[in-house]
Amino acid sequence: MEKKFVTVNVSNRHIHLSREHVEMLFGAGYKLTSKKVLMQPIQFAANETVDVSGPKGTLENVRIVGPERIQTQVEITVAEARKIGVEAFVRLSGNLKGSAGATLKGPKGSVKLNEGCIVAKRHVHFTEKDASEMNLKTGDAVSVKVSGERALVFENAVIRVDKNNAELECHLDIEEANAALIKNGDRAEIIK
Amino acid sequence: MEKKFVTVNVSNRHIHLSREHVEMLFGAGYKLTSKKVLMQPIQFAANETVDVSGPKGTLENVRIVGPERIQTQVEITVAEARKIGVEAFVRLSGNLKGSAGATLKGPKGSVKLNEGCIVAKRHVHFTEKDASEMNLKTGDAVSVKVSGERALVFENAVIRVDKNNAELECHLDIEEANAALIKNGDRAEIIK
Repeated sequence: MEKKFVTVNVSNRHIHLSREHVEMLFGAGYKLTSKKVLMQPIQFAANETVDVSGPKGTLENVRIVGPERIQTQVEITVAEARKIGVEAFVRLSGNLKGSAGATLKGPKGSVKLNEGCIVAKRHVHFTEKDASEMNLKTGDAVSVKVSGERALVFENAVIRVDKNNAELECHLDIEEANAALIKNGDRAEIIK
Repeated sequence: MEKKFVTVNVSNRHIHLSREHVEMLFGAGYKLTSKKVLMQPIQFAANETVDVSGPKGTLENVRIVGPERIQTQVEITVAEARKIGVEAFVRLSGNLKGSAGATLKGPKGSVKLNEGCIVAKRHVHFTEKDASEMNLKTGDAVSVKVSGERALVFENAVIRVDKNNAELECHLDIEEANAALIKNGDRAEIIK
């Protein structure tokens, strides 16, 4: 089988907010404003930020990623979870049941989350063509091999196939990227 | 070949100081004091800390690890290097030539380092018996496989054989440990 290469996309800590929570944190009728369009065309880094607190500390100015979602979701690193004193649940986006709670604070109010605070689980977005060529479907796992000074192989990278995906894209968090000494936009190799 | 398991030892940021630099930072004749004995019998975490600065920021209260060494050496993560604005050189301990500079500040003075600031290169301490059984010598590289939710294989882990080593011990930094969701004292598998 020919080798497949994948572009690495590194996520910094961020938060997705529900409509209800945008209003509780920023005021009735408030609309998030776009600071920068992200790789996936619909998403944007907002100008707005919130503080995220746990029993042991606070992460200040956590960037909101819009647009609004059905469920509020906080994505932080293991080190950040430890800093604020919440458990690090490694979860795919949207899989929030039983994850960590946190308190959000905005300019107009605060929100107490009972769950929704996660460490993002590594995953790879597949085009339909690539998935078909490798005989893979959404939910399957592959490994992602990084070369260089801190070479490593990430196992258990869950794949997501979508007809809108234009290219193979592996999502890692900052600690995973730093452990492999790679940065946003670098290339890695898919191993089935 | 039988599987070899290794204990993981996770290093937080820390600094080793030369005698000259202890005196410049803490005063003439000053002796570091031990807060906690570390795994390797001679080493201790000192009560003393210093601030480490680069062009973009400062890491406050970086723990000193004693005893004194011939050369001052600062060990930080890739994220911390980025925060203070110095390049992240991944190096084995003692291999400091051409690494990043930094400014150290203590209660009695400061020191400007031209080099000595590194990100620790992952390595495995071998007993003579284990090295002999796997036909490995100091400087060879192995891989270290971690299971679980964030399973991964660390490649290029350099080995160090010493007759004083009592057991196999893999040294990782915090970002490597968090990327694999393992903690100090956890077990991993050596792959030749």
